[in-house]
Amino acid sequence: MTSHKVSFDIVHEPVQVPTGTLLTEAARLAGVELLQPCGGQGRCGRCAVQVLEGTVRRRSTLRLSPEDVEKGYALACQTVVEEDALIHVPPQEKIERRLTSDLTAATVTVPSGYDIQFDQTVRRVNLSLVPPSMDNQTDDLDRLLTAFRQQANLGHVTIPLPLIRRIGSILRENDWEVSAILDVHDLIDRSYNIERLIDLQPRHFSDETPIWGVAIDIGTTTITLWLVNLVTGKVKAQASEYNGQIARGEDVISRIVYASKNGGGDELRSLVLRTINDLIEVACKRASARRGDTAYMIKPEDIVKATIAGNSTMIHLLLGIPAASIRLSPFVTALNHVPLTTGHEVGLNIHPLGTVDCLPGVASYVGSDITAGILSSGMDNTSNITLFMDVGTNGEIALGSREWLVSCACSAGPAFEGAGVLNGMRATRGAIEEIWINSKTHEPTYRVIGGSKPAGICGSGLISLLAELFMTGVIDKAGFINLQLPTKRVGEGEHGPEYVIAWGEETQYGKNITITHVDIDNLLRAKGAIYAGFRVLAKSIGIEMEMIDQMLIGGSFGKYINVEKAIQIGLLPDMPWERIHFLGNTSILGAYHALLNKTERERIEEIASRMTYIELSADNSFYEAFMSALFLPHTELALFPSVEAAMLS
Amino acid sequence: MTSHKVSFDIVHEPVQVPTGTLLTEAARLAGVELLQPCGGQGRCGRCAVQVLEGTVRRRSTLRLSPEDVEKGYALACQTVVEEDALIHVPPQEKIERRLTSDLTAATVTVPSGYDIQFDQTVRRVNLSLVPPSMDNQTDDLDRLLTAFRQQANLGHVTIPLPLIRRIGSILRENDWEVSAILDVHDLIDRSYNIERLIDLQPRHFSDETPIWGVAIDIGTTTITLWLVNLVTGKVKAQASEYNGQIARGEDVISRIVYASKNGGGDELRSLVLRTINDLIEVACKRASARRGDTAYMIKPEDIVKATIAGNSTMIHLLLGIPAASIRLSPFVTALNHVPLTTGHEVGLNIHPLGTVDCLPGVASYVGSDITAGILSSGMDNTSNITLFMDVGTNGEIALGSREWLVSCACSAGPAFEGAGVLNGMRATRGAIEEIWINSKTHEPTYRVIGGSKPAGICGSGLISLLAELFMTGVIDKAGFINLQLPTKRVGEGEHGPEYVIAWGEETQYGKNITITHVDIDNLLRAKGAIYAGFRVLAKSIGIEMEMIDQMLIGGSFGKYINVEKAIQIGLLPDMPWERIHFLGNTSILGAYHALLNKTERERIEEIASRMTYIELSADNSFYEAFMSALFLPHTELALFPSVEAAMLS
Repeated sequence: MTSHKVSFDIVHEPVQVPTGTLLTEAARLAGVELLQPCGGQGRCGRCAVQVLEGTVRRRSTLRLSPEDVEKGYALACQTVVEEDALIHVPPQEKIERRLTSDLTAATVTVPSGYDIQFDQTVRRVNLSLVPPSMDNQTDDLDRLLTAFRQQANLGHVTIPLPLIRRIGSILRENDWEVSAILDVHDLIDRSYNIERLIDLQPRHFSDETPIWGVAIDIGTTTITLWLVNLVTGKVKAQASEYNGQIARGEDVISRIVYASKNGGGDELRSLVLRTINDLIEVACKRASARRGDTAYMIKPEDIVKATIAGNSTMIHLLLGIPAASIRLSPFVTALNHVPLTTGHEVGLNIHPLGTVDCLPGVASYVGSDITAGILSSGMDNTSNITLFMDVGTNGEIALGSREWLVSCACSAGPAFEGAGVLNGMRATRGAIEEIWINSKTHEPTYRVIGGSKPAGICGSGLISLLAELFMTGVIDKAGFINLQLPTKRVGEGEHGPEYVIAWGEETQYGKNITITHVDIDNLLRAKGAIYAGFRVLAKSIGIEMEMIDQMLIGGSFGKYINVEKAIQIGLLPDMPWERIHFLGNTSILGAYHALLNKTERERIEEIASRMTYIELSADNSFYEAFMSALFLPHTELALFPSVEAAMLS
Repeated sequence: MTSHKVSFDIVHEPVQVPTGTLLTEAARLAGVELLQPCGGQGRCGRCAVQVLEGTVRRRSTLRLSPEDVEKGYALACQTVVEEDALIHVPPQEKIERRLTSDLTAATVTVPSGYDIQFDQTVRRVNLSLVPPSMDNQTDDLDRLLTAFRQQANLGHVTIPLPLIRRIGSILRENDWEVSAILDVHDLIDRSYNIERLIDLQPRHFSDETPIWGVAIDIGTTTITLWLVNLVTGKVKAQASEYNGQIARGEDVISRIVYASKNGGGDELRSLVLRTINDLIEVACKRASARRGDTAYMIKPEDIVKATIAGNSTMIHLLLGIPAASIRLSPFVTALNHVPLTTGHEVGLNIHPLGTVDCLPGVASYVGSDITAGILSSGMDNTSNITLFMDVGTNGEIALGSREWLVSCACSAGPAFEGAGVLNGMRATRGAIEEIWINSKTHEPTYRVIGGSKPAGICGSGLISLLAELFMTGVIDKAGFINLQLPTKRVGEGEHGPEYVIAWGEETQYGKNITITHVDIDNLLRAKGAIYAGFRVLAKSIGIEMEMIDQMLIGGSFGKYINVEKAIQIGLLPDMPWERIHFLGNTSILGAYHALLNKTERERIEEIASRMTYIELSADNSFYEAFMSALFLPHTELALFPSVEAAMLS
């Protein structure tokens, strides 16, 4: 096969690739990071590059204008090399590396009455062994097991081979006085891990010496990690970072598509591991610094237990398990209940023999982020009929009480996270987070995160914008822009009808920030899918929307939603605002509780097993509910009495 | 640190090493194999090399004459580099790669009534899963576990992560019809491995399709492997090879010394793994060929279970566990009972998740070669008082019956394997294996293995020689050579008094084959230690030597021992010859029985736990017994009535 030289203008070395190689693959080999938020499906247009020399074959030019193609632009994920080529890589969108949640680490309350002795699976025991002598030639391992039996009442300790290799020297170097870290599972029925030795450490330690664990929430967009002292239960450091997989797809579907390609699964696995391992480093440094004792540094390998929540796709990709079946009918996971595993097996940079506990999910689109979220929301323990929603990329919803639980996923898509919206962006510096429109002049006012010039609009900004546009008559209930309004803000733009929120001179990049009809349509679909989900869930157990006692909203994004506006666009059901509660990141909180307390861990198992999953794509009533929810606030205005009242006022 | 160029005349590339590097290390880096039978202690002199250019520092010149040193000879294991040097490597002794036991594979009888269903831990089950649908969205893993429960009555199957990663594609590619290989332990109380899935294979198989296992005996000198069809119990191929560690030490002590050096343990581990993995390849090829069906090849990864016997040092080195404590008072192992592990963990080239079962030993010098040997000898099941001995490098002995078992190791050393004897060699082509001396002329006659010119004397030859020398008066009962005899065969040689068995012109290398006083002394010590062991064991339970009903001798070497001569030198106790039985390699036979039958496997566990180990180095009576056994046949001639009678005749 002929091979060609492909040069990229932003790196020194060209690469040699055979005919037919995708430009994205050539870029990867050359060490060029190209964003592929759609997972390489040619849908998003973010991987566009300019071919300066040589000809290429374009499989698709979707998202490129004829002028772009004329200028040599090509979608790298859809373009194959056919001869030597020189490629110009336009500046890639930088992810602003300051997450709101990473800056404002909340104080986490230790669950009251936490007691490592009763609640925790991990324990440390000090052992004093009788040294061997000519009268007592028992082997080291048996000597150790006897000490476990006699001094700690542990009769079935299993010791992995890597640790067996070190026992002899540890015992001898410490005069047969050692302490052991074990993970003891007496509640969870997983026969394989009854009493597992994780580490044997020199000398005895006081009961106050910390034992380290981490709770991790792997979101499609953001990964959050809490470093916890398992002795006191206290969270000693928090850290968040964008999931390193983002550049390979913004939603789970794009990730699955990317993972299903040759080598894609391995790449996504190493990307998420890199992010988590970086967060572990960061958290260890932060906690070490806080102790103020320079002699005492927390090292990643001091962490002996990790409890992980995440949607099913994230868990599959983390463990290197093919996720393709999640995306294809009949939409099943490889597994919902992950056996306990170890840091080494997973590739986490904690103690190699440290326990890794991936919490159980329910279905392809209702993962352990939801079961953990339900645990921390407490909805499985209340007599109130509760609607739970994790505002995130996937639109998972649960409805229930202590009597019953049902759930579904509405494939809302990431529109409210800024994807699929021309000027959408994540909630970072430069994002417009709230907008007000003058009902007379139709002139907007807005607030920008960080106070700088605006660069785009984030989710809460979009909700606010949609509500204002509707309530001031800029758009009608079907989302059409009224082009007859006497203002320069509305008009036909490059992408069709649009409303201009900020003129070029006010913005960071000198270009208008607008919302187009296509954007509005995407937002209506997203909110319509979520509300339709609410109704189908309610209907599935035969209750009406107004019978719902409270609504609990998880996800750090939720904190910034203006409830009034969210109801006005029909995203949230119309209920007294005081019954709507924003809980923040319920997934990490649930993982934290499961990390600390084996009874809570069992409770998640119970939540996962008793929750009924409703597959919306197989439910005819969903399509009907979705169609009637595509209007503002809804076709059936009676469902939104407060909005009706406001419109009349 | 300064670095020097060291060149070896038998390889192209020189190596760069820092000042102070041992020549053996430099040789290793240069890819030069130097024999180090003593483990690099400077005792054996086999690693002598000649320094042609440059000066070196010799830590020890033991085993080198002043003339050797004059000529530039140096012991590579005791010599460090101080400047650039050119080294001549004399031709290394080649190990003749044809073991007797490898040539004459015996037919092994399958234990009567063997039934895979009842006896075997490994089993295959065919499963037919209900495919997922929109009405049945259970995840793959749960679907599989349900099938195990419903179709195979297996309710606690654990599945390792590497296999979980493959479940989805295996199920889908085979229309949800698969077969599973599991290891099910219902007798052995090791909670961690109740029902472990080893492999999931496409399609269904008939009950007759073979399932492959291996029994392995890791001897200090020789490794033997049997490839077994676990369905029928039949041994389908046998293979033996010298243990690749030999070049790094001939006995266990030398190996432990070598392993304790920097990197030595890793090197010895990979050497033994290489030998075993080669044997696995060989056995698979032999069994494939025998099936006569070229389409059906047995591959190493088809092997799903390996049962291993070996002395404690061999097992430690195989598993990468430090063995230093075995050698140092109070002589304890890191472990005698090895938890079940896997091919991947150990590094065996079988199925990565295949079970590896290292059989339990008793003490530092009574390993699982002995417990397995006792099992196959049946001495734990008889009412006869039985003396069991594994003729090998280490001189392990057991005494007992179904009522009681005691054992000891007499550190006999490898004299009877040819080490520590000037013209000693292993029992390969060219070894003198039997000798007769004319009692009048004192002229010898001998028989050589393979019928060629002699190259040295092997163990059975040495026993025969010692007996003949004694019975014909060439040596006295203390082993002194009678230099007054009227024959040119006796005289003062280069190494002191000697008897010439073959003149230079008759031998392979043109040099006399002799036995020296030093050699005889070493042999007396070896046989004395063994016989002293017998007596101490008997005494420990209060019986006399003549109360022993039978003697069972394991080890392939045993087959060639002439009983009469062995009694004449006092190596074996004087009892009617028909009560002495040679059993061949009892260790591999025991491993084979344990591989097949879980009840037999339990029996080894029971043998190991009820056997009392007597530490001879802590036993004053041993020294006494040893001193009186240093004579031919013994100080107390009354113990050897048949020899006394023969001497008088």
